[in-house]
Amino acid sequence: VLGYDDLLYATGAQAIRPPIEGIDLPGVYELRTLDDALALRDLAVGGATKAVVVGGGYIGLEVAEAFHTRGLETTVVTMMPTVLERTFDPDMGAKIGDRVEEMGIELITEHEVECLESRDGRVVGVGCADQSIRADIVVLALGSRPATRLAADAGIPLGASGGVSVDQRQRTAIDGVWSAGDCADALHRISGEPVNLHLGTVANKTGRVAGINLGGGAASFPGVLGTAITKVHDFEIARTGLTEFEAHAAGFDFVAAEVGSSTSAHYWPGSSPMRIKMVAERGTRRLLGAQIFGGPGAGKRIDTVAAALWSEMTADDLAMADLAYSPPFSGVWDPVNIAARKVGERASSNQQLAPSQ
Amino acid sequence: VLGYDDLLYATGAQAIRPPIEGIDLPGVYELRTLDDALALRDLAVGGATKAVVVGGGYIGLEVAEAFHTRGLETTVVTMMPTVLERTFDPDMGAKIGDRVEEMGIELITEHEVECLESRDGRVVGVGCADQSIRADIVVLALGSRPATRLAADAGIPLGASGGVSVDQRQRTAIDGVWSAGDCADALHRISGEPVNLHLGTVANKTGRVAGINLGGGAASFPGVLGTAITKVHDFEIARTGLTEFEAHAAGFDFVAAEVGSSTSAHYWPGSSPMRIKMVAERGTRRLLGAQIFGGPGAGKRIDTVAAALWSEMTADDLAMADLAYSPPFSGVWDPVNIAARKVGERASSNQQLAPSQ
Repeated sequence: VLGYDDLLYATGAQAIRPPIEGIDLPGVYELRTLDDALALRDLAVGGATKAVVVGGGYIGLEVAEAFHTRGLETTVVTMMPTVLERTFDPDMGAKIGDRVEEMGIELITEHEVECLESRDGRVVGVGCADQSIRADIVVLALGSRPATRLAADAGIPLGASGGVSVDQRQRTAIDGVWSAGDCADALHRISGEPVNLHLGTVANKTGRVAGINLGGGAASFPGVLGTAITKVHDFEIARTGLTEFEAHAAGFDFVAAEVGSSTSAHYWPGSSPMRIKMVAERGTRRLLGAQIFGGPGAGKRIDTVAAALWSEMTADDLAMADLAYSPPFSGVWDPVNIAARKVGERASSNQQLAPSQ
Repeated sequence: VLGYDDLLYATGAQAIRPPIEGIDLPGVYELRTLDDALALRDLAVGGATKAVVVGGGYIGLEVAEAFHTRGLETTVVTMMPTVLERTFDPDMGAKIGDRVEEMGIELITEHEVECLESRDGRVVGVGCADQSIRADIVVLALGSRPATRLAADAGIPLGASGGVSVDQRQRTAIDGVWSAGDCADALHRISGEPVNLHLGTVANKTGRVAGINLGGGAASFPGVLGTAITKVHDFEIARTGLTEFEAHAAGFDFVAAEVGSSTSAHYWPGSSPMRIKMVAERGTRRLLGAQIFGGPGAGKRIDTVAAALWSEMTADDLAMADLAYSPPFSGVWDPVNIAARKVGERASSNQQLAPSQ
């Protein structure tokens, strides 16, 4: 038993492992540790020809990209209707899924994995109700949950979203006990609700705040927007703030608009298509969130929207904001300006939502 | 004589043409029109081997890149101590100039062009006080001035920065006369002063506002930040808000900080160095401006700062803002976060300004 003056509860998250038959077979992996990654790389370059990734979230897509890059036939299986179902709206997820399939990664949606099949004590397939998918490697990428059992057992209060409940200084409800990282909740600046996000940015920032405070300083964590970005080959995918689904759940009266544009002036060599969906509150016209996908240069535009959300800008503010233009980088109106203008027009009307070009 | 109910004065800008001997020689160009560009391209692919660009601003660098791409030996001559002297601080301009030279574009600074030399009625050289530079093509990229002579002759008041003075609806002081585009002034949101910027973004946005108002609508132009971006090959260069020089001129008590970082996680294949210099008001810690350069992905980060400036965010706000991270796109703390933190630390101290890593 070790005593303490101050205690930091920073246990992180653990991969979700559903009780699927065969989950402990050799050849079945999660992707939580460096050892997982090294073992997967050895298999990928060591004769495996077929990889199946179970789960279509960020990690699922990223590990699928890694196998595909190394020449393996790659399948992503998800029980959801499309990829990124928990972090993007279904219409955006469906388009992202289409693009992933065009790259040559097979996508099997609305299929629950019922068992992992073995031969000679090693995984050889993924079994769903109506089909079996051959697999030399299986990666389970079914998300993660905060590692809070120890906290719960010790009586440290958890929040509604499942993480350890903390205030903005990262203090739990127990005197002298602090928490930060994937195991702790964080305040969502748009919904005003605690959320439990497993993102390096949030973990690092909350860790810094906790560290400063534990060291006798006075730091405050200002909250999150749920900003995240990933890519599959040269296809970039990013989000911030609330999706339509999340805006609805948070009780907002909102509108959304989606625009198709390009990563640079349309005539510029190498210009790629990109799409932005933006969500704003009806009436106040305050921006609530954005989802972006497209070619190189599309994804990091999410930071412009994140800065706008951070300071509660309206759609009109962002529509006219002085963003950088020259033909290799943007049209004269950046796609972020255009999407903001579109959603602003909708936010002041009763127009029905429909995707627009 | 044509009468009018409403008149839009939209004459744009014209290239500055100093009274240099030989300026009208064949082979000497500006870059204002499509015909200029076509003629230059024909020369560049038609046997010319040496191009000299007079002027080190955006257009000078961009046209130098175009010649260099086509295999011409290329020299940029400027009377300033470095490139981009009017839009970047000298320390940043010097580093940008170093990078341009590393690419193989010759840079001759602090040299005034005194004459253009000819043989057989065609330009063959650029003459400075102490040297003559061989040239098959000369491009004058000495900036532009607003085309206001007609306005001045007609008694339409001009502003202190040289453009036609307008209000936020794009009205001049003369009833029924409007102005927009390069010929008109615009309000700088940080300095609060009218500025006359020749940028496609400003021209397009003010044109839209004028058009809506002329058409009976009610639009207002919210001002500019002077956001701009360019590139030389894969080296990206961008700015927004005020430089140190401009912050001083506008009367701010300010600090600056400069950080070196990388366009993606430092271990990511293809990660490039980038630098951000950020300027903030001492005491209030309000952000005043930023300058960025670096590899692919560096430049458009300026939009994140522009959105922050647009809503008067402090350095502290931007330091903790929830910007997007995954290794192909950024470190866990985006370079914009880090630069904001650095300048925020300086803004609350009396620390002397010195570049930091």
